[in-house]
Amino acid sequence: MPPDSSFKWLKGGVTAPAGFSASGTKAGIKHDKKDLALIVADRPCAAAGVFTLNAVKAAPVLLCRERLRKCPQARAIVVNSGNANACTGPRGRADAEATAAAAAAALAIGPEQVLVCSTGTIGIPLPLAKIKAGLPAAAAALSRAGGGEAARAIMTTDTVPKQAAVRLRIGGREVTLGAMAKGAGMIAPNMATLLVFITTDAAVRSGALRAALSSAVSKSFNRILVDGDQSTNDTVLCLASGLAGNRPVARSGADWKIFEAALTAVCRKLAAMIVGDGEGVTKVVTINVAGAASEADARKVARVIGHSLLVKTSWFGADPNWGRVICAVGYSGARVAPEKICIAYNGRAAVENGMATGMAHSALQKIISQSEFAIEVNLNMGRGTYSLLTCDLSLDYVKINADYMT
Amino acid sequence: MPPDSSFKWLKGGVTAPAGFSASGTKAGIKHDKKDLALIVADRPCAAAGVFTLNAVKAAPVLLCRERLRKCPQARAIVVNSGNANACTGPRGRADAEATAAAAAAALAIGPEQVLVCSTGTIGIPLPLAKIKAGLPAAAAALSRAGGGEAARAIMTTDTVPKQAAVRLRIGGREVTLGAMAKGAGMIAPNMATLLVFITTDAAVRSGALRAALSSAVSKSFNRILVDGDQSTNDTVLCLASGLAGNRPVARSGADWKIFEAALTAVCRKLAAMIVGDGEGVTKVVTINVAGAASEADARKVARVIGHSLLVKTSWFGADPNWGRVICAVGYSGARVAPEKICIAYNGRAAVENGMATGMAHSALQKIISQSEFAIEVNLNMGRGTYSLLTCDLSLDYVKINADYMT
Repeated sequence: MPPDSSFKWLKGGVTAPAGFSASGTKAGIKHDKKDLALIVADRPCAAAGVFTLNAVKAAPVLLCRERLRKCPQARAIVVNSGNANACTGPRGRADAEATAAAAAAALAIGPEQVLVCSTGTIGIPLPLAKIKAGLPAAAAALSRAGGGEAARAIMTTDTVPKQAAVRLRIGGREVTLGAMAKGAGMIAPNMATLLVFITTDAAVRSGALRAALSSAVSKSFNRILVDGDQSTNDTVLCLASGLAGNRPVARSGADWKIFEAALTAVCRKLAAMIVGDGEGVTKVVTINVAGAASEADARKVARVIGHSLLVKTSWFGADPNWGRVICAVGYSGARVAPEKICIAYNGRAAVENGMATGMAHSALQKIISQSEFAIEVNLNMGRGTYSLLTCDLSLDYVKINADYMT
Repeated sequence: MPPDSSFKWLKGGVTAPAGFSASGTKAGIKHDKKDLALIVADRPCAAAGVFTLNAVKAAPVLLCRERLRKCPQARAIVVNSGNANACTGPRGRADAEATAAAAAAALAIGPEQVLVCSTGTIGIPLPLAKIKAGLPAAAAALSRAGGGEAARAIMTTDTVPKQAAVRLRIGGREVTLGAMAKGAGMIAPNMATLLVFITTDAAVRSGALRAALSSAVSKSFNRILVDGDQSTNDTVLCLASGLAGNRPVARSGADWKIFEAALTAVCRKLAAMIVGDGEGVTKVVTINVAGAASEADARKVARVIGHSLLVKTSWFGADPNWGRVICAVGYSGARVAPEKICIAYNGRAAVENGMATGMAHSALQKIISQSEFAIEVNLNMGRGTYSLLTCDLSLDYVKINADYMT
């Protein structure tokens, strides 16, 4: 990745790049909160998507995937919160198509130019009539300043809207990327209950856009873990309008690397915001694994630590219980030699060669009492590395999820 | 398994069979609670053990495994709670051996006849001096009625001691099995932070004992899941004294089947007690998976459901959120066709062909408000089945584990 100085962070989100407008309105799916978002481009865009690996995929996920496979172009995205339109059978599929058609009618564009996303409760039919009735007002509310309201309308248990935008130069032209995301629970590697929408005025060929998005997601949203539950609805969509007038970014060459780096930076920023706003989260923890026999082994170790209830609750309690961390390393399935394992907190060694270093309990406790800290695990078995951003498991997580539906 | 009527449940635990005495005393490892248990046989016993699959194994686990590989016999088991003697390096190993030697001296038997187990905090050297000083009193306290006190002395976060005993006939002779267990957190399939000790006066050849114990464990302790964390110290040990005078049970034949069934029944009873006493548990849930493409697939599905934070917290909140269950099925890695998945609660269909049946929310809520219920998942892909006993995730689990060390 080039140094941060090569691009400039901006305020705002999906309407930061030229040629995009957005809105966030109330369709009445949720009680008295915004629940319908529209993102619309002035002209057809190259479009790419990355979707959940869950075998049970929501209807809008299947629809978006098919449309982008057929033609990697789109002009609009319509998103509802409050209902996932998942496990809703043929009716769910018809509802997703009807939503796209209704949005297309309101925007006076072709229905095949509209992508659809949903997030919320699984298994309840989509309140299509409400969405259809709400779309004209959503279209009327579109504005170049509407990114923030759109970001608010896609929230579920999120406590804050999440946006990022960055400006950089590609091929001598100034280009802008803007994005918004939602996600707070059901967050696991390989996507999560997260919806992410990225817009850019850069001109990018569709194959190059797809490759850049896959790469950016693998380095950002696939490296966060809140609760380890992988959603039926995860979707990351990216629209590139080309209004910036740069020579279109192709799959190879320096321009692609610059674009991919900026896209990755935007995705990482949103990923960190998602973990920080994870349900009940009080601590954000970076797990850096090194010295694994392979990257796959390093990933296993990082994920079991980030998924362990005992480790996550000890962080919540600021209990410097490294025994639970090394225990998780042991059952990760990675090749380990217990007597070679080293564990450090913010660079200070707590475990060397599988044993306590004698680091003072109070020093360790001070580190894990902070709202952010890093754990480094070195297996001393090889060169595999992996990093994961995760969080603690608090009383509030249980409270939030014990009565989500009710 | 033969019908229950072929054996009779008794009160008591490890001292129920003839020829065993036990004690539970205070060595001062824990503050003001019993922390040292002894189980002693009048004569050398055939012995078998099953141990944690965690790559990081505590010193006593390594010692027991080596001893039983060398010679499958033992006369005594010494157990301490309050310290796991794990991640303690060469000193930990020496401490485990010294514990066995000290117990042997107090009992006037050979040190190779003593097995050692520890449970408690990881990474802190064993307080050997306290254990050595406590062993003469522990030996003096041995009695035929001591099973209950021994069961109490091995507890950590357990709220109740766990014992089981059963009487049956093998080869025309009356034989008895007795057992005790501890375990409440760090409970995952493939063993858990659990220690289980089983005694019997039956005569059983060592190979037959090993096979019966493996089989019984695979059908009991490997099918429970509290938090999914797999401990460094899990150990199941079984001693068979032969005092009952039956013709020794060999690996093949009807006697082995009867013995294995009784051993399985004892293990299952203790496994259910462990889940019921799981940290903060308010609900015990049986997950029955059927129709999977293979048993391995069925196991995957059962385990992801039992391990899902979102599912477990929804049970705690009596929130009939089957969407989280089908979502977990989808990311289990098992072969699934979403439109074939059926989910029932206590036999009442909530999901058929991947969609809601229209079962009333109130009816579903009534079921999952009970302290015990069963979820049946049928994938309709093949004949693979698997059952798992698990529990909810409550506020108390987080409270207990946020400050276990402090």
